[in-house]
Amino acid sequence: MKFTCNQQILSRAINTVSKAVTNRTTIPILKGILLKAEENQLVLTASDLDLSIEKKIDAYVAEKGEVVVLSRLFGEIIRKLPNEEITIELKEDNNITIQCSSSQFNIVCFPPDEFPNIGEVEEQSKLMLNRELFKEMIRKTAFAASLDESKGVIVGVLIELEENHLNMVALDGFRMAVVREEMKNEEETKIIITAKILSEISKIISEVEDEDVGIILDNKKAVVLLDETRIVLRLLEGEFIKYRDILPKECKTIVTLNRGDFLESIERASLFAKEGKNNLVKLSISENNMTITSRSEEGNVKEEVIISTEGENLDIGFNSKYLLDVLKVIEDDNIRLELNNGVSPCLVKPVEGGQFVYLILPVRLSGN
Amino acid sequence: MKFTCNQQILSRAINTVSKAVTNRTTIPILKGILLKAEENQLVLTASDLDLSIEKKIDAYVAEKGEVVVLSRLFGEIIRKLPNEEITIELKEDNNITIQCSSSQFNIVCFPPDEFPNIGEVEEQSKLMLNRELFKEMIRKTAFAASLDESKGVIVGVLIELEENHLNMVALDGFRMAVVREEMKNEEETKIIITAKILSEISKIISEVEDEDVGIILDNKKAVVLLDETRIVLRLLEGEFIKYRDILPKECKTIVTLNRGDFLESIERASLFAKEGKNNLVKLSISENNMTITSRSEEGNVKEEVIISTEGENLDIGFNSKYLLDVLKVIEDDNIRLELNNGVSPCLVKPVEGGQFVYLILPVRLSGN
Repeated sequence: MKFTCNQQILSRAINTVSKAVTNRTTIPILKGILLKAEENQLVLTASDLDLSIEKKIDAYVAEKGEVVVLSRLFGEIIRKLPNEEITIELKEDNNITIQCSSSQFNIVCFPPDEFPNIGEVEEQSKLMLNRELFKEMIRKTAFAASLDESKGVIVGVLIELEENHLNMVALDGFRMAVVREEMKNEEETKIIITAKILSEISKIISEVEDEDVGIILDNKKAVVLLDETRIVLRLLEGEFIKYRDILPKECKTIVTLNRGDFLESIERASLFAKEGKNNLVKLSISENNMTITSRSEEGNVKEEVIISTEGENLDIGFNSKYLLDVLKVIEDDNIRLELNNGVSPCLVKPVEGGQFVYLILPVRLSGN
Repeated sequence: MKFTCNQQILSRAINTVSKAVTNRTTIPILKGILLKAEENQLVLTASDLDLSIEKKIDAYVAEKGEVVVLSRLFGEIIRKLPNEEITIELKEDNNITIQCSSSQFNIVCFPPDEFPNIGEVEEQSKLMLNRELFKEMIRKTAFAASLDESKGVIVGVLIELEENHLNMVALDGFRMAVVREEMKNEEETKIIITAKILSEISKIISEVEDEDVGIILDNKKAVVLLDETRIVLRLLEGEFIKYRDILPKECKTIVTLNRGDFLESIERASLFAKEGKNNLVKLSISENNMTITSRSEEGNVKEEVIISTEGENLDIGFNSKYLLDVLKVIEDDNIRLELNNGVSPCLVKPVEGGQFVYLILPVRLSGN
């Protein structure tokens, strides 16, 4: 194997594929990147078995071949080289030499045989998504998924294709985020993708120039297709919670308020809430006014926010973290809270447009 | 105590004085800031006993008084309030209320009695330093001081006033940085200030507008005087190493080279050096060329740098960290290495101007 390519292009490609490299593995070859020199191109591949990323770059290939390099070391070397042509050559004993300007490196590599085959997908359905829309839908849902890997499918985001809609849903048992966009789909299907992997995909599609993202599905895998990058990921298996059943159908109190004011008040109130285990902030809702209170051994705080209320007055407690998360994700100036009583779920929505709904469970307030 | 002041001005003042707050203390009151409302001003003071910072800001004082607030909590509250007037009032039981716009906080505070008195200094001598020059001299020396607090005075930087010069020196047993600037001084004196404290002072003087920094000295303390800020620090006691005796008087080899090229080559070579315990990089110096090599189990590297050599050829090994540190501190394009042999100290200097000298001890190379 012997090829020559540009330092910056190679460095960027390493940066992309290394998002699939895990350092928490006991399988040494998974810390590596497979370099495959083919006709006029170099293919870089990394995989942690759940997520595999493949990227092609232009290269002058003098001799075809393949080898696995350690991702961290190889990436650091290439990044620190000057922006010039780099020639990489495979020597005996799976060593490679890296030659660039007045630098010459020899590094120990792995043979390619044991590198996992990221495999092909039998195309059962295919969808095309606008890149910016897909990123936005990931941003509005992935944060709400559970981080606890023992919790099954709720570490994932449900992607639901209906005839005229694309829905994405994530929840962790305390809150749920649902985003719904109009979109024509030829067939109806549901898949679940780990939130962490979706966030990586969001980063990768930010780096490419493609306007649309193609996704090919079979029963167990999905392939995200971009111009020179292919991402293969394992779908989460299992039945997602019937999220529509959780959404309250009616409400007794509707509160309209400014998102920014509410966010700042909750941030200040959470300075004390931090101390407690459940980050409790208490909201007292009356006709034109919401009082937010919180206390710890260090002191207490009372915040007043101007609101507009339709329906009954109400006292309710929340874990401030779950409120802050959604207030940071919504970009609209004004939001609406839909409530029933102090122990029933609360919905948070932008005032304009019904594409996004967030459900948050209250924390039961003690008597005082 | 009751006063009103501006949120941004108070927040900036907390930020300045909190540099003297230590969270590694077992004395709870040292985690605090003393607020003292005097006529038309609020004085904030923090101290970790070695370093005390006092800052005055304008305030409308309705009632004089003092109290100690927890630095972290008070700082976070003030930072998160809107940029408006804040009114702070002392209540019974050493609680204070903080009122700003629609927010009201109550926080538990300490009585002021046990707060350390930062004390006065009997002026024995006074010097005036240009702020930018002082910052630059700190930047060029403080990094070379020892971080090991058991090592006595070498955790400090020597500040030496001579009739026509100001010298600053730091060393850690493996390298030494000396900077010497022309300056008329009425009396000759030497003080030693902990490098960590000097770095904090450098940050504080960056935040103020004063062009000159006054320093008042007595035997045990120094006071750095700025417009509205006073920094009191304990001097390190003890005899500093006779640094002039360590500087070699002559050399057999002088190498002139480009600092940027040398820095980049050493950075690449240190990718392997990292693995070893002493970060060894080997320099082979010949007439027009320096070869830099390094190796680990993961591989090896050879870098070529163009140089101009006067005198004898030489092989010498260094801990790459000590070379990188100085190559990042010097700003000149070209530098000079002055060497004698593979086991004697090497001097690093900018080609232009003799104000800065850096000494680095070599690592003995094994036979191969």
